[in-house]
Amino acid sequence: MNATQLRSAIYIAALCGLYLSTAMLIPAMVDLYYGHSDWKVFAACAFMVGALSLTAAMATRGPPPVFTKRMGFLLVNVLWATFSVVGAIPMMFSGPQLSFAQALFESVSGITTTGSTVLSGLDHMPPGLLMWRSLLCWLGGIGIVALGLFVLPFLRVGGMSFFKMESSDTGDKPFARLATFTRAFIGVYVGITIACAIAYDFAGMTRFDAINHAFTTIATAGFSTHDASFAYFRSDAILWVSSFFMTVCSLPFSILIVFIVRGRLDALRDPQIVVFLGYLLFFSVSASIYNHLANDVPFHRALTHGVFNFASILSTTGFSSDDYLGWGPFAVTAAFFATFAGGCSGSTAGGIKAYRFVIMFGIIHNGLKRLIYPSAIYSVRYGTQTVDVEVQRTVFLFFTSYIFIWFVGSMALSTFGHDFATSTSAVLTALSNVGPGVSDLIGPSGNFATMNEGSLYILSLMMLLGRLEVLSVLVLLLPTFWRT
Amino acid sequence: MNATQLRSAIYIAALCGLYLSTAMLIPAMVDLYYGHSDWKVFAACAFMVGALSLTAAMATRGPPPVFTKRMGFLLVNVLWATFSVVGAIPMMFSGPQLSFAQALFESVSGITTTGSTVLSGLDHMPPGLLMWRSLLCWLGGIGIVALGLFVLPFLRVGGMSFFKMESSDTGDKPFARLATFTRAFIGVYVGITIACAIAYDFAGMTRFDAINHAFTTIATAGFSTHDASFAYFRSDAILWVSSFFMTVCSLPFSILIVFIVRGRLDALRDPQIVVFLGYLLFFSVSASIYNHLANDVPFHRALTHGVFNFASILSTTGFSSDDYLGWGPFAVTAAFFATFAGGCSGSTAGGIKAYRFVIMFGIIHNGLKRLIYPSAIYSVRYGTQTVDVEVQRTVFLFFTSYIFIWFVGSMALSTFGHDFATSTSAVLTALSNVGPGVSDLIGPSGNFATMNEGSLYILSLMMLLGRLEVLSVLVLLLPTFWRT
Repeated sequence: MNATQLRSAIYIAALCGLYLSTAMLIPAMVDLYYGHSDWKVFAACAFMVGALSLTAAMATRGPPPVFTKRMGFLLVNVLWATFSVVGAIPMMFSGPQLSFAQALFESVSGITTTGSTVLSGLDHMPPGLLMWRSLLCWLGGIGIVALGLFVLPFLRVGGMSFFKMESSDTGDKPFARLATFTRAFIGVYVGITIACAIAYDFAGMTRFDAINHAFTTIATAGFSTHDASFAYFRSDAILWVSSFFMTVCSLPFSILIVFIVRGRLDALRDPQIVVFLGYLLFFSVSASIYNHLANDVPFHRALTHGVFNFASILSTTGFSSDDYLGWGPFAVTAAFFATFAGGCSGSTAGGIKAYRFVIMFGIIHNGLKRLIYPSAIYSVRYGTQTVDVEVQRTVFLFFTSYIFIWFVGSMALSTFGHDFATSTSAVLTALSNVGPGVSDLIGPSGNFATMNEGSLYILSLMMLLGRLEVLSVLVLLLPTFWRT
Repeated sequence: MNATQLRSAIYIAALCGLYLSTAMLIPAMVDLYYGHSDWKVFAACAFMVGALSLTAAMATRGPPPVFTKRMGFLLVNVLWATFSVVGAIPMMFSGPQLSFAQALFESVSGITTTGSTVLSGLDHMPPGLLMWRSLLCWLGGIGIVALGLFVLPFLRVGGMSFFKMESSDTGDKPFARLATFTRAFIGVYVGITIACAIAYDFAGMTRFDAINHAFTTIATAGFSTHDASFAYFRSDAILWVSSFFMTVCSLPFSILIVFIVRGRLDALRDPQIVVFLGYLLFFSVSASIYNHLANDVPFHRALTHGVFNFASILSTTGFSSDDYLGWGPFAVTAAFFATFAGGCSGSTAGGIKAYRFVIMFGIIHNGLKRLIYPSAIYSVRYGTQTVDVEVQRTVFLFFTSYIFIWFVGSMALSTFGHDFATSTSAVLTALSNVGPGVSDLIGPSGNFATMNEGSLYILSLMMLLGRLEVLSVLVLLLPTFWRT
């Protein structure tokens, strides 16, 4: 790290602050429209953050530094840290006026599209604040897809490279295609959001609810405008609409773009999609059958809620339509392990992610065969491609780090007095950016309102670690990272 | 697999049966000595199993097959399966006359040195039955050290090769040294057992208790002759004696042999020992401080119980001196994660094991550095040695398989109605060969008596999987394994 790099990191952070301060005008307008006085909070925050960011941006303007990997990692961390802190500011002054730790938790939860909340009494919150939460999710969703498509593959941390993905086309102008692709992505992201909002509206939500839930559905985030989440609506139609969109938004956006723009369905060529849909089917159907048998719930009802709640966990959204912890021990244990899984790479979903499972199972299968025939040469395959050793190594790196961070985080959280199920599942749900845990306190019917500041800081860190694919944050711990 | 290989696998299984039937005469003599009529059960079982084994051995005698890796894996599985089933037979007829599933669970728990029990009312069980349980542990301990030293390294599954270990010496007669080493190992194993029994006797146990607990301490197994385990004795001296021997028996036996036979202390040259003692210190001391602060327990008392119970978990023994689940959430969560850890390779301890953590942390550290400097070459080191890529791959294979089996096993167990903490910790404690879990039902004050047959079969399988380092069993699932 040298001065130029740090300077331009601050410069880009300032631009982000500017961008987010502009976004604060939206909740200001919402509050104004609904006649709530908190529009002043958002307007004031927008002005202050905007002014501060502009000053910082002016002060740090200069020639761009050489773009190295270290610079890439630094930027990713600085960007998400800035988003988190700036996002928290209006929450400290609007509605229930959260403490800094709570506001930061809520903001990180939004930006990382987790959807855990410290707020209760959502049904009576100022509309601007509710919109701000949803908007943070939606913007965080754009951020993470962009990161996964354009940045992480370059940093070799994960995600599927845009360039690799498109390599089958004849490409002599990669940056022209990049611009086209970015436009297509934004178009599709906005388009799906609008489609989802219209579908919610048709299925019976109010317009305000439809827009808010569309934002947080597309980002697979899970903030709701009601304490009861989707149980509030008492509508099977709404649950199925939501299940559909949560599932779609766990698929790689590149697939959606190719489908929508060119009408080509590549889905089955990508093994992660098959695996993701496979475990989604397994968890939803087995939980539904279990709920049907164990609690005498009519099957169609069990299926509706089984699919909705497990699509919600596996897409790492975190909505709930029912307290599935009450279905019985299998549902609890399944919900816990489903929280590890996650969606596809290149989507807004978090978790370990389906493509890593594909690669890990390939490594295990090959490894077992090599135990019997050590001299034979087997390659790990991902669909029709061979997975090179470097990628295998990174998957291992990610998986072990994920599990170790879960160990350490859970033990740290338990020192604040949270019981076994709360400690282990709170850290896991934060790392996987899902939302609810598997204890009554933080389960589908609970929230994080009673947690103390220390716990909230730990969980905020876990959400950021998970969102940035763990390794992007861990590199900051290396002394060599900071050497000039 | 061909007929010769299967035939000689049965032959070796029959020899094992013969060996174990001879061992049954010991509990027969114990019952006879204490005047309990169950001596007839053990004598009859010894006679029947012996006759059957002898017949089978005669029928399958023949030239030895070519020893391949597949044959090695087959033998390991057949041996432990035979031990398990034969060990179960007397338990179905002595004392409370367990069902087959219960007897198998108890026998597997002994042979794998786990120490989970389905028996309650241990204080009033026939002495022969208690001795049989302890003896199974002790023999299982010999089996696992031999496996880890001589067989698993050859199969490349884990463990540290005897040959590699001794490679610093000038060795022109490896098999002569092997014989010497085997004699030294048996000598040391028996010697430590006697030392432990004498120490327990001095510290205040009855002679019968001292012998039984010495057997299960040295094997890091954890069966006790009292329902209350070590809480029964109400003696700090006994706890410290036990803590010492549990810790010693989690160290590689090769180190102990070199120390005892040659008076050379190599311990600090082996990084796994440093790491193991490091996390033992961390868990014991932090749990003691926590117990002291949270429950106003005097520090010396908290430390005695903290060290004992965490040495018990980390050495994968499973004795308890107190219901540490009552100390508070941190103790529960720490106990849960400590159950993953395990002791050193080449000992009787189970779990993931310290040397794998050393290698995994090496891989993570290097991997993070490579993210920043992709062209630099870093090697993963284990002490002064470089860890080759094949070993790194096997560690990854083991770790991911371990975690996945824990996922699948826990979900399977929860279908029988066990709650989240019971399901997840029962499978983990079985897989790591520890003994108690972290729920009231199966915790340090509970046992597995109320579990149904399905649960017991699942957990028996988990104990065997863990004991045979997972991969040795998983290879049986490959169709290619069974091809002729």
